[in-house]
Amino acid sequence: MTETKPRLRAAPLWTTSGPWLNTPKGEPLALADLRGRVVVALGFQMLCPGCVGHALPQLARVRRAFHPARVAVVGLHTVFEHHAANTPETLAAFAHEYRLDFPIGIDATDPRGGRTPVTMAAYAMQGTPTLLLIDAEGRLRRQNFGHVEDIALGAEIALLVAEAGGAPAGPSDVAASAAAHGRCAIP
Amino acid sequence: MTETKPRLRAAPLWTTSGPWLNTPKGEPLALADLRGRVVVALGFQMLCPGCVGHALPQLARVRRAFHPARVAVVGLHTVFEHHAANTPETLAAFAHEYRLDFPIGIDATDPRGGRTPVTMAAYAMQGTPTLLLIDAEGRLRRQNFGHVEDIALGAEIALLVAEAGGAPAGPSDVAASAAAHGRCAIP
Amino acid sequence: MTETKPRLRAAPLWTTSGPWLNTPKGEPLALADLRGRVVVALGFQMLCPGCVGHALPQLARVRRAFHPARVAVVGLHTVFEHHAANTPETLAAFAHEYRLDFPIGIDATDPRGGRTPVTMAAYAMQGTPTLLLIDAEGRLRRQNFGHVEDIALGAEIALLVAEAGGAPAGPSDVAASAAAHGRCAIP
Amino acid sequence: MTETKPRLRAAPLWTTSGPWLNTPKGEPLALADLRGRVVVALGFQMLCPGCVGHALPQLARVRRAFHPARVAVVGLHTVFEHHAANTPETLAAFAHEYRLDFPIGIDATDPRGGRTPVTMAAYAMQGTPTLLLIDAEGRLRRQNFGHVEDIALGAEIALLVAEAGGAPAGPSDVAASAAAHGRCAIP
Repeated sequence: MTETKPRLRAAPLWTTSGPWLNTPKGEPLALADLRGRVVVALGFQMLCPGCVGHALPQLARVRRAFHPARVAVVGLHTVFEHHAANTPETLAAFAHEYRLDFPIGIDATDPRGGRTPVTMAAYAMQGTPTLLLIDAEGRLRRQNFGHVEDIALGAEIALLVAEAGGAPAGPSDVAASAAAHGRCAIP
Repeated sequence: MTETKPRLRAAPLWTTSGPWLNTPKGEPLALADLRGRVVVALGFQMLCPGCVGHALPQLARVRRAFHPARVAVVGLHTVFEHHAANTPETLAAFAHEYRLDFPIGIDATDPRGGRTPVTMAAYAMQGTPTLLLIDAEGRLRRQNFGHVEDIALGAEIALLVAEAGGAPAGPSDVAASAAAHGRCAIP
Repeated sequence: MTETKPRLRAAPLWTTSGPWLNTPKGEPLALADLRGRVVVALGFQMLCPGCVGHALPQLARVRRAFHPARVAVVGLHTVFEHHAANTPETLAAFAHEYRLDFPIGIDATDPRGGRTPVTMAAYAMQGTPTLLLIDAEGRLRRQNFGHVEDIALGAEIALLVAEAGGAPAGPSDVAASAAAHGRCAIP
Repeated sequence: MTETKPRLRAAPLWTTSGPWLNTPKGEPLALADLRGRVVVALGFQMLCPGCVGHALPQLARVRRAFHPARVAVVGLHTVFEHHAANTPETLAAFAHEYRLDFPIGIDATDPRGGRTPVTMAAYAMQGTPTLLLIDAEGRLRRQNFGHVEDIALGAEIALLVAEAGGAPAGPSDVAASAAAHGRCAIP
């Protein structure tokens, strides 16, 4: 198994334009800055119903379930349609209203004038939402267009975290939220 | 970390009465029979709304996400109220209608006449639903009364699977279901 | 329009066995007792997932939305499968756990030994859940097998209530619940 | 009852700026144009999560449940925050992606420079979503800030439709959708 790992491809760098949301002074966040942590990145568009209804809320659940020292969550606004509608001002208002508080960068416009932005093309994304799982050494381990079930996503992230830790991380690293809702208690 | 493991308590045995559902000829399934696999067991009651609405559907998602050679799913019908209503016939009909096709045993009645059945008492369960995670060596690693988020549960199961495998299991062991629903595709 | 109404068929009587749930002393409730009120009756089985997951919660919403002096809600336990599992004790426990507090009668067993109970046969119900709308004069106005959208159901009930009132009932008869959840308020 | 009706206040006119969405050539739609039909109008903002997640999908269900000759559905984009983000281009893209195909007008900016747009002020709306029910004679019958249950909304609309029809409209005017999902059928 170990000999297959060197063949994993490094995740393409992302190329963004303008300031980021939710970083100090809007400084861009580079993939290299996150080395040592598992990265869960989402290519999304704020006008994509599947992103708003499913993928972005799932990203919030990822943040709740994993410690930020182990797992970094990143949004990439990969706009390939309705370019005029997707201004930075609108994205900032969207992020504010939907309480998105993780770093979000704006995928850079194709310098040759195409509709598909640079990072989206570098990953050959088919559309939005696209989820990227990048391991602690910066290698792309999964790319997924569309919905992924929470239980499978939690499993994959945990294995990448364990892999990065040398010794596997114990379950105590993982937050489990037990809700009183719907329980039948012995009186 | 390795030195702490021997101190983990072995999961109590479960004690059931009568035939099981979904085992060959209704033969009881013992915890020892599952050694080598991670066990996800659920203490439930068929008349507990939180079990029916949340915990049992989650168990079905666990089955979909993990390979049965790695993860065994078990139901324990731990009745502590409405004993007269919870007949084996009703449980069988319930399991049939809700398409529960994993092994289900009926927790044995307290021989001293108490309301709490034997396995429920052995685990000191507070009520239903109660989720048990037992590692491949038969040690109880988590016990949870009430709802657990899918993403955290998937993470915990995956780590126990990895732990059992010597080398960590790769993400390829985990089924990811990507649905076309709600995607915005590049035309 | 008025001349077509006399041709509407009277709703078949229902025939139940044993005491009712949620009536004084378990006295049976006859359709004639409800004359003057619109009746929303549900043929259900406690082991039918669609009844538990959708139709019974909808019935609770009907009760919240309409005044009990105008609209009566009734459950009919119409068992056509798993007869041995559906004991009165189990139904009582089910109703208790699911907080069903409207009158529920048990459809009488076919005296000729068939699987379909008497009321279910009288209405030629195809299965469960089956919703019956009966007007204030005891005439069957709608019979529906499966899910009905809340908005259409609310509309139909309201029209039957208005019809019964001589002058149409005003919107003030209808409870509207506005929740603060998800509102964006002017600061 | 009839003598109280003349006292109902006429709904304020709405004042919009620029072309409408989903009208012929973007022509503005005036409230007077809808006389004879019940009007269900929604004050919303495309960046308000409660509007996107709840109120706009509910409006789509209203359209499915009632005949367009009886009930007109109208959207009013009442922007009171993030003005720079809410451009007409973004609204058009939003409406396209979310498949909003009913007429939508943009509430006119306050000529005195305030944040609250003209129609929003005329109705004294507290925020978004705000639902307006206007009867066939153009009188405001309900104004609601926040979520309303479908069953109550369906009831109120139906009564206004019946009121407008002289003779009450029969239930046959109302579409009921019965889904096979979750049904237990007699074999």
